[in-house]
Amino acid sequence: MIAMQKNNKINVELLLTGNELVSGDVIDSNSAFIAQDLGKLGLEVTRRVTVKDDLTLLAQEISEQTKRCDILIINGGLGPTVDDMTSQALAIAANVPIVEHKDAMTSLLAWCQRRNYELNESNRKQAMLPQGCDVIANETGSAVGFTLSLNNCQVYTTPGVPRELKNMLPNEIMPHIQQQFNVTDTTDISRFNLFGLGEATIQELVNEHLPDWPDDIELGYRAAMPHIEIKLTTHDQAGHDKKPLWQTKLANLLGAHVIGDGKMSMAKSLINALDANNKKVTFAESCTGGLISSLITKESGSSSVFEAGFITYSNAMKTKMIDVPESLLIEHGAVSEPVVKAMLTGALKQSGADVGVAVSGIAGPNGGTNDKPVGLVWIAWGDAQVQHTVALLLTIPRTAFQQYVATAAIDLVKRHVLDIVEPPEYLSTRAFKK
Amino acid sequence: MIAMQKNNKINVELLLTGNELVSGDVIDSNSAFIAQDLGKLGLEVTRRVTVKDDLTLLAQEISEQTKRCDILIINGGLGPTVDDMTSQALAIAANVPIVEHKDAMTSLLAWCQRRNYELNESNRKQAMLPQGCDVIANETGSAVGFTLSLNNCQVYTTPGVPRELKNMLPNEIMPHIQQQFNVTDTTDISRFNLFGLGEATIQELVNEHLPDWPDDIELGYRAAMPHIEIKLTTHDQAGHDKKPLWQTKLANLLGAHVIGDGKMSMAKSLINALDANNKKVTFAESCTGGLISSLITKESGSSSVFEAGFITYSNAMKTKMIDVPESLLIEHGAVSEPVVKAMLTGALKQSGADVGVAVSGIAGPNGGTNDKPVGLVWIAWGDAQVQHTVALLLTIPRTAFQQYVATAAIDLVKRHVLDIVEPPEYLSTRAFKK
Repeated sequence: MIAMQKNNKINVELLLTGNELVSGDVIDSNSAFIAQDLGKLGLEVTRRVTVKDDLTLLAQEISEQTKRCDILIINGGLGPTVDDMTSQALAIAANVPIVEHKDAMTSLLAWCQRRNYELNESNRKQAMLPQGCDVIANETGSAVGFTLSLNNCQVYTTPGVPRELKNMLPNEIMPHIQQQFNVTDTTDISRFNLFGLGEATIQELVNEHLPDWPDDIELGYRAAMPHIEIKLTTHDQAGHDKKPLWQTKLANLLGAHVIGDGKMSMAKSLINALDANNKKVTFAESCTGGLISSLITKESGSSSVFEAGFITYSNAMKTKMIDVPESLLIEHGAVSEPVVKAMLTGALKQSGADVGVAVSGIAGPNGGTNDKPVGLVWIAWGDAQVQHTVALLLTIPRTAFQQYVATAAIDLVKRHVLDIVEPPEYLSTRAFKK
Repeated sequence: MIAMQKNNKINVELLLTGNELVSGDVIDSNSAFIAQDLGKLGLEVTRRVTVKDDLTLLAQEISEQTKRCDILIINGGLGPTVDDMTSQALAIAANVPIVEHKDAMTSLLAWCQRRNYELNESNRKQAMLPQGCDVIANETGSAVGFTLSLNNCQVYTTPGVPRELKNMLPNEIMPHIQQQFNVTDTTDISRFNLFGLGEATIQELVNEHLPDWPDDIELGYRAAMPHIEIKLTTHDQAGHDKKPLWQTKLANLLGAHVIGDGKMSMAKSLINALDANNKKVTFAESCTGGLISSLITKESGSSSVFEAGFITYSNAMKTKMIDVPESLLIEHGAVSEPVVKAMLTGALKQSGADVGVAVSGIAGPNGGTNDKPVGLVWIAWGDAQVQHTVALLLTIPRTAFQQYVATAAIDLVKRHVLDIVEPPEYLSTRAFKK
């Protein structure tokens, strides 16, 4: 909103083409990427249109959009096949012929040469562009982009292949826009990632404890289950100057619920904590079935802090692999405090790791009882000396349950490694009460 | 295309509202869901528009869209907050007042009562609808949908919350459309899921071996890495009649690369194969770090076929947990044929499982050498009697590497359980050649 008022002469729209998009066979994430890159320049997309690969529809859409906006970014339809018709549609809308473009052909020939390809007829089509346009280099693919002015609107065409788009956008298109529109980029966005507090709770905490939150620091939330992303946006120097202080206040208020800056994952933050303390971790997983270990090993660099994980899905394997006494399983059942404690102790001993977590629960949809309903999970975490346990009740679908439990498990052992005493909110709000 | 020619009088467009959508903070998957449900009725979306939450823009868009199409489905903006303005925008476009709608209020009160909520002012807003519209029940949320006719276009409003949308669409909106437009649903879509063949290879196989593939069975592919989804669409009785035969021909051509109908996952297909043969499986994972076990335990019902997984990320743990002789590790290194064979043997012995897979590789981005580059993985699979091994080279990023290796591992042990002799194509095309 503020960005719009700032650049109130710059109206941006997007046009996406592709039958696979309108049919729902492909979910469009390119437009989000484009909007975020524009956001870094303080430019806001007000409208985006997605149409099927139909030359008449496309030409008509381009004609209408260019009449209403200052910048139109078109995505897709630059490839070599018959359903790629962006160039043709633009030529119709601009009422100019399609011609073989010298720069585009040079780029195409260089691309073929690098790959030892013969230039074939369908590729040659990619150099046929509306007369008078300027070529935009594509360093990662065969389809060049191009730009032209139509109805006082600067049109940019971009490739539909995400990898190519993500290269062309920041390196070619954004600098062109900045120069063309003399955009002084003043928008600044900080993000941090959070686990264990709901949006409503965060908002209440801010209202209560930071009632004089400044208007010129926009506060936004985005659920990226089980995480929440917090976004602080400022648009002018006054806002930028205030931001560090308020960001610190907010971070202090939310405490160790904050995972880290940007898109820092919970797993990566545990790896960092372990690395800093020169410690290794192990996991004994029942209901998460390998997900905790998998989240850790997804991160490169995990081998310095992780050596072994025990997926003990059956009772017998809890006994055999990590020495859980059979008597405990018989007396208390697999989903119980004594059993997760024994799982933790056994995993620490078998792996030689310094710290660990053990989880045992009922992911559902079946397997619950009155005493132990679906959604119940026992977690034990700590080291050889100090162990903690908790029972949570998470009445969410199986995969969401597994994701939440795995993230909480990583969070709890990280808090242990970092000696964070204050418990996370979910230990009380999600507690299982018999 | 064919659907369009069939229902050439029914032109469908979508309108999505939300600042979080145009800003790129949220990726829109609702429109894909709507398009797919419409596809089941043989209706094709030709155009969709996404606009920010701005009353003037919204009203203008509704006005323009209703003039050009027969069905307009609006998604989002039905909630209780100030940025929810679909009802108001429609009233402006239709030039009618907003009134408290009796049916909507009844539904809202019932919703509050079920939850023991007081009806508050912001919720009351959800019963304020354009005069003359009909309410569409929402069984899973507070916001009812509604429908009205404007500019000879039937407009439907739907909630932005995916869970609510997914309930309302098939149960309320689609039947209304069918009745209103007398749509005789003749489109039939079959899907199956495939692993281990590229799109280009599939197309070549079809061209070569099924050159007389009928025009009235549309063949489509969608990459859902590491899987490929194949879609067979027919639009009339002649097509439907032919489809079973050609589907069988295609399935035979692609062989065991086919995982199953619909969205059958590789993990679920292994669970089914094990269940049918009354067998249990185990996994010894190094470079996949728990992902294989995690994919299996994501499926409910996995406990009948899976008891134990061994995540042996370090050399020492390969020896300690699953008895890999230290001498093998020293002589051949962890990423080697003798070591994965020993991992498999040890995991089978420790777990008592009937069949198993072991993987050891270099996921990257670091850790490669000239002899053993990043992307190399050794896989061993089989049972106590028969063991197979293969080395693949997958030069793809870390997480894609882990996904591919995990899926291939599950595929290979499934083929062993089902006694499928013919090897999958990737064993040769992706083979590591020294």
